[in-house]
Amino acid sequence: MSSPFRKSTLLVALGGNAMIKKGQAGTIDEQFENLRTPIRQIARLSQDYRIIITHGNGPQVGNLLLQQECCDAAPDLPLEILVAQTQGQIGYMIESTLDSQLMEMGIEDKQLFVSLLSYVVVDPNDPAFSDPSKPVGPVFTEAESVGLSYPVRKTPRGFRRVVASPRPITIVEKREIQKLIEMNFIVICCGGGGIPVIREGRTFAGVDAVIDKDLASAKLAEEVGVDLFVIATDEAGAALHYGTPEQRFLGKISVREAEQFLSRGQFPAGSMGPKVEAAIRFVSAGGHRAVITAVDRIEAAVTGQAGTILET
Amino acid sequence: MSSPFRKSTLLVALGGNAMIKKGQAGTIDEQFENLRTPIRQIARLSQDYRIIITHGNGPQVGNLLLQQECCDAAPDLPLEILVAQTQGQIGYMIESTLDSQLMEMGIEDKQLFVSLLSYVVVDPNDPAFSDPSKPVGPVFTEAESVGLSYPVRKTPRGFRRVVASPRPITIVEKREIQKLIEMNFIVICCGGGGIPVIREGRTFAGVDAVIDKDLASAKLAEEVGVDLFVIATDEAGAALHYGTPEQRFLGKISVREAEQFLSRGQFPAGSMGPKVEAAIRFVSAGGHRAVITAVDRIEAAVTGQAGTILET
Repeated sequence: MSSPFRKSTLLVALGGNAMIKKGQAGTIDEQFENLRTPIRQIARLSQDYRIIITHGNGPQVGNLLLQQECCDAAPDLPLEILVAQTQGQIGYMIESTLDSQLMEMGIEDKQLFVSLLSYVVVDPNDPAFSDPSKPVGPVFTEAESVGLSYPVRKTPRGFRRVVASPRPITIVEKREIQKLIEMNFIVICCGGGGIPVIREGRTFAGVDAVIDKDLASAKLAEEVGVDLFVIATDEAGAALHYGTPEQRFLGKISVREAEQFLSRGQFPAGSMGPKVEAAIRFVSAGGHRAVITAVDRIEAAVTGQAGTILET
Repeated sequence: MSSPFRKSTLLVALGGNAMIKKGQAGTIDEQFENLRTPIRQIARLSQDYRIIITHGNGPQVGNLLLQQECCDAAPDLPLEILVAQTQGQIGYMIESTLDSQLMEMGIEDKQLFVSLLSYVVVDPNDPAFSDPSKPVGPVFTEAESVGLSYPVRKTPRGFRRVVASPRPITIVEKREIQKLIEMNFIVICCGGGGIPVIREGRTFAGVDAVIDKDLASAKLAEEVGVDLFVIATDEAGAALHYGTPEQRFLGKISVREAEQFLSRGQFPAGSMGPKVEAAIRFVSAGGHRAVITAVDRIEAAVTGQAGTILET
């Protein structure tokens, strides 16, 4: 565990929106093409770091919700099962893209890597269940958003369906993930923030929710011991006065500054807000450096040359 | 690897139809309830054996196909992505059911277990691509099956959609799976026969197909070294003259007998046929015992007390 020779552990959290870009319908070719940029960098970084990859699933789980709602030919599945389905879909896409990149580098035979299903325990009394805030699925205009059968909120990208987003309490597979990274496996896990479950006596039960993938990643980082945490998204980093003429990009900031900006509502809920919060939690729990950056700047972010950087 | 103290390795292949029984719509509660019977037995067997669990996905992938066809709100995904989605769904359901059973036994903290996404290489020139034979999705009456937009065949359970089912050549994650079972992880993998891919130079590409999960399981068993192979299904075992008044259940049979019955067409393609073929391949490749049995007789099958048994 604490061998002086061990590599540092890097956790990269890939946004679901980094796979389906603004304006794209989200065909499978688009998603594979978009993945190449971050995964090529991660493949190179795997030479120097132990790697964990987590990922979002907002657009993908939204598409599954849409399909299920407009079709009565098969029984509806609860949201946690749809999250599990997106872990299958996106986990495979990331793993096979990584495989191709490692092949191009000629090192696929030297590197073990797996994509794991992961579920995450939440509190059934979490206030999020009575106040849905996590955007999923397609972006609507204000006119389109009227009369939809589910809760909708305005987000920086437009109007979107929102679902409950409770806090992650613990990653059920943490022992397995820790063991695998100790053995230098690249581990893809916690997709879509993990499949949300609650404890019911001596068993787990799924719940209708989506856990924020950045907060789940920060919890995982704390539980398995991660040194560097990169949150890769479709923005260059966090900004003050986002979307206004006064918008100002944030470079290196302290945890205290980040907390102040966050408490003043500078970062939108369900979007940059949880990313900044996840970065704060990671550094506060002992992590070395957290960076929020664009998907094409992951390598620069790791060395502190890009993005919004929080350090101890 | 060949320590005299190592436990034998048991691979249990669970049929997709063992999760959604004949006459059930396939609600999530039904699927969880049906899983308890096989998983309770597997949890007990994990005390004495290293365990690999594989699973089918026929009804589940069929439901995703149906939904996608009847809804234009999201881009259609190719079949291999739907297979990946069912690996997410069913892998989670098996893993969380196993978790609950191990908790009931009070040993969940002593046992590591993971559910892995798996993809399987097939040959782009496999004749199966021009002759779809694998049933997926719901069962239709003959009248309902007329006029459907995809190929349909009569199966013992009724009329069903069929898709290409090429031979598995190699399991891409075999090194990882072998390493994990050596470390006494229970590994859930190769769901739905694995996500089908072909090699294209230095990369993999998904293909529109479903690999038979029993043949994929036999290939995995050969590649990672499995001692016992149990194929758990909704029948007590293989039978001669199936579905006729002369139906005769088969107990212990030799590989040679099994090959003869198979070549005489005693076992339906896309159903019992590939199960018998998988059992033959497993034993011929050096496996100790293969058993085709009902989901409630897995423990008895392991000790040779139930099912249709092939031994070396």
